[in-house]
Amino acid sequence: MSLIVQKFGGSSVADAESIKRVAKRVVETHKAGNEVVVVVSAMGDTTDELLDLAAAVSPLPPEPREMDMLLSSGERISMSLLAMAIKNLGVDSRSYTGLQAGMRTDKHYGSARIVDVNPVRVRQALDDGLIVIVAGFQGFNDETEDITTLGRGGSDTTAVALAAALNAEVCEIYTDVDGIFTSDPRVVPLARKIDTITSEEMLELAANGAKVLYIRAVEYARRHGVTLHVRSSFNNNEGTLVLNPKEGEQMEQPIVTGVAIDLTEAKITVVGVPDIPGKAAQIFKIIASTEANVDIIVQNVSAAATGLTDISFTLPQDEAPQVISALLERKDDVGFESLQHDDQIGKLVLVGAGMKANTGVSARLFEALHLASINIEMISTSEIRISVITRADNVKEAARVVHAAFDLDSVEEAVVHGGTGR
Amino acid sequence: MSLIVQKFGGSSVADAESIKRVAKRVVETHKAGNEVVVVVSAMGDTTDELLDLAAAVSPLPPEPREMDMLLSSGERISMSLLAMAIKNLGVDSRSYTGLQAGMRTDKHYGSARIVDVNPVRVRQALDDGLIVIVAGFQGFNDETEDITTLGRGGSDTTAVALAAALNAEVCEIYTDVDGIFTSDPRVVPLARKIDTITSEEMLELAANGAKVLYIRAVEYARRHGVTLHVRSSFNNNEGTLVLNPKEGEQMEQPIVTGVAIDLTEAKITVVGVPDIPGKAAQIFKIIASTEANVDIIVQNVSAAATGLTDISFTLPQDEAPQVISALLERKDDVGFESLQHDDQIGKLVLVGAGMKANTGVSARLFEALHLASINIEMISTSEIRISVITRADNVKEAARVVHAAFDLDSVEEAVVHGGTGR
Repeated sequence: MSLIVQKFGGSSVADAESIKRVAKRVVETHKAGNEVVVVVSAMGDTTDELLDLAAAVSPLPPEPREMDMLLSSGERISMSLLAMAIKNLGVDSRSYTGLQAGMRTDKHYGSARIVDVNPVRVRQALDDGLIVIVAGFQGFNDETEDITTLGRGGSDTTAVALAAALNAEVCEIYTDVDGIFTSDPRVVPLARKIDTITSEEMLELAANGAKVLYIRAVEYARRHGVTLHVRSSFNNNEGTLVLNPKEGEQMEQPIVTGVAIDLTEAKITVVGVPDIPGKAAQIFKIIASTEANVDIIVQNVSAAATGLTDISFTLPQDEAPQVISALLERKDDVGFESLQHDDQIGKLVLVGAGMKANTGVSARLFEALHLASINIEMISTSEIRISVITRADNVKEAARVVHAAFDLDSVEEAVVHGGTGR
Repeated sequence: MSLIVQKFGGSSVADAESIKRVAKRVVETHKAGNEVVVVVSAMGDTTDELLDLAAAVSPLPPEPREMDMLLSSGERISMSLLAMAIKNLGVDSRSYTGLQAGMRTDKHYGSARIVDVNPVRVRQALDDGLIVIVAGFQGFNDETEDITTLGRGGSDTTAVALAAALNAEVCEIYTDVDGIFTSDPRVVPLARKIDTITSEEMLELAANGAKVLYIRAVEYARRHGVTLHVRSSFNNNEGTLVLNPKEGEQMEQPIVTGVAIDLTEAKITVVGVPDIPGKAAQIFKIIASTEANVDIIVQNVSAAATGLTDISFTLPQDEAPQVISALLERKDDVGFESLQHDDQIGKLVLVGAGMKANTGVSARLFEALHLASINIEMISTSEIRISVITRADNVKEAARVVHAAFDLDSVEEAVVHGGTGR
């Protein structure tokens, strides 16, 4: 008998009809002879409605403890309704809150991290032949004895953590698309579904704008060797398997797995930095003090005549203002001349574990962009990723030409759906 | 410093504006130098909406455990929103679920009884100077480790149980009327607000149709000596104090405190029962097996010629069918001739601790009904209560004439509001 964890997001349990459809799917998996643990998010709009109510009673930033108490009510509703819908199909199930499922977290309300999973009641209920339903997105801290929530993508993390703790065969993430795509189908119409991908590659894609899986869940899956299966809740097609090949194990796969783009970054250039040891360290120490997430860094070659250099880096657009003011505050200290800020950049990221063993990937990438007359402003590479910065209005075209250049194009256009958050 | 428990029902926290009004009231009580524990129900329509969802996912009677999980989410929403609204007024508070407030119950999902209240966290938070908010209507069972709900009027019971455990000075029950009335103002327009009433009298009124307080909460308050104050959440008027005078202690009060009517009962008459010892016992054993709640019982004097008698009793209308079929099943055994069923009866109940020391109350009651040409079909009396059964369409008129006959009439008509459930 296999143990399967199935996670359904908010759009999959948006109303009574959707819940009944999920119940049917869960019961089918159970009847096929599997042990089934279902992780659910709050119903469709519940979270937004609760946030609206919170804003209506108090315009002040809410107390995180009370916000978690408020938001964690959403999964209690969806999970108990799912239990009823399953019972309606003649099968017994039991729903458990994060607390009851043993989902222990630290005490960071709103974005708690799982520190331990001890699913005693879940295991017992499975042994009793029941389908088990667990509230996603929530846990508890045993020092404060309070409810916590896990933040964006928290239900994915709940599912993966339970799969790891219960040694599940697979953790199925149900969504409204057919799986992970080689690129965003809204940008690259010929993007195609990926059948298998390594968790390492998936991490890069998730970190660079692929919204189907959340990076924390993928990290957790990778660390604990959990196999993920991202698939559609609207059909029975195979989706994308996210695997964890062992060190040295070869997976048959293309050089490049996917092409992601990101239009949410800005570039800051520190102009006229004295080219002496320790200056870069000083600058990035100042930036780190703002807790900004710097992505790509490029330092120009020093102009020997002046003894000055420029340092450019990218970061999320909304973090730019505080970094700029932190740097300006220490301008005389550091001794730079000026700052330039540019939020009209786009980032293209090429991901593929196959790059490790293939030379010439960068050359093929640059050639493709050159043929399309797209200028590259910054470059950054790792073992399985190449990122380039272009003008913002070039990046979608860049994605299409690169997608084609690496033979990722499908023969037909993908069908585009929306996406969810929790 | 006094400790005050304040309970607000669903209509008092129906929307963001109502919650802000409750927050203001709670903060005022806190600023006046009191320790305040607030018990809240789910917001206005939440419970009905959740029940509708449950019915939509499964027409089967829902599993009680999952129903309790579902319904208990309602108070988590209202209590965390109230905490935010209180914070918005600059005061710190903390909200606790039934589990966190130490509300231990038996394991009867849907109508659990409180077995122990151990409000350690509540006491600690009060000691820290915080306002405490507790979810009404819910508790937990530590054998099953599950959430339970307390059934109708459960939030009142939560408030009273907390008041008892914390040794509160008073438990204020906020509602949409000004207090307990001498009769239902919709029936008796001259009904007036009662200033003080004993818990004994309140029990009789609650058991006989006064919907403002629930009988379980009054019983709990009486057993634990908790003073209740039933008052309006829309003004600052004094409401009705429900007191627990010590044995022999005299309260200055009228003979009769209130007049209740009830149109939800039916009368069953067992015709032609052999008038031999043990027959009545046999009949009521059969009735008891259906768990029906028999109210008034009258046995006619036996007609010596036939050796047969009739036994009549009243019970809630919806319990009549199963009682009738249980009796018919054993017809030959018991040896009665036939059954008569009558759901066109009304019950009038006169309540007053002053009756104990006053003779002639029954005579005055019967005289008033006689003058109004209202026929009495059954009578039942206790130390502080007289119940009479009349035709259903006479009972409202009966209430008005009796209300006047015992000098309960106010000089002006009461203002009528609606009522709530949880």
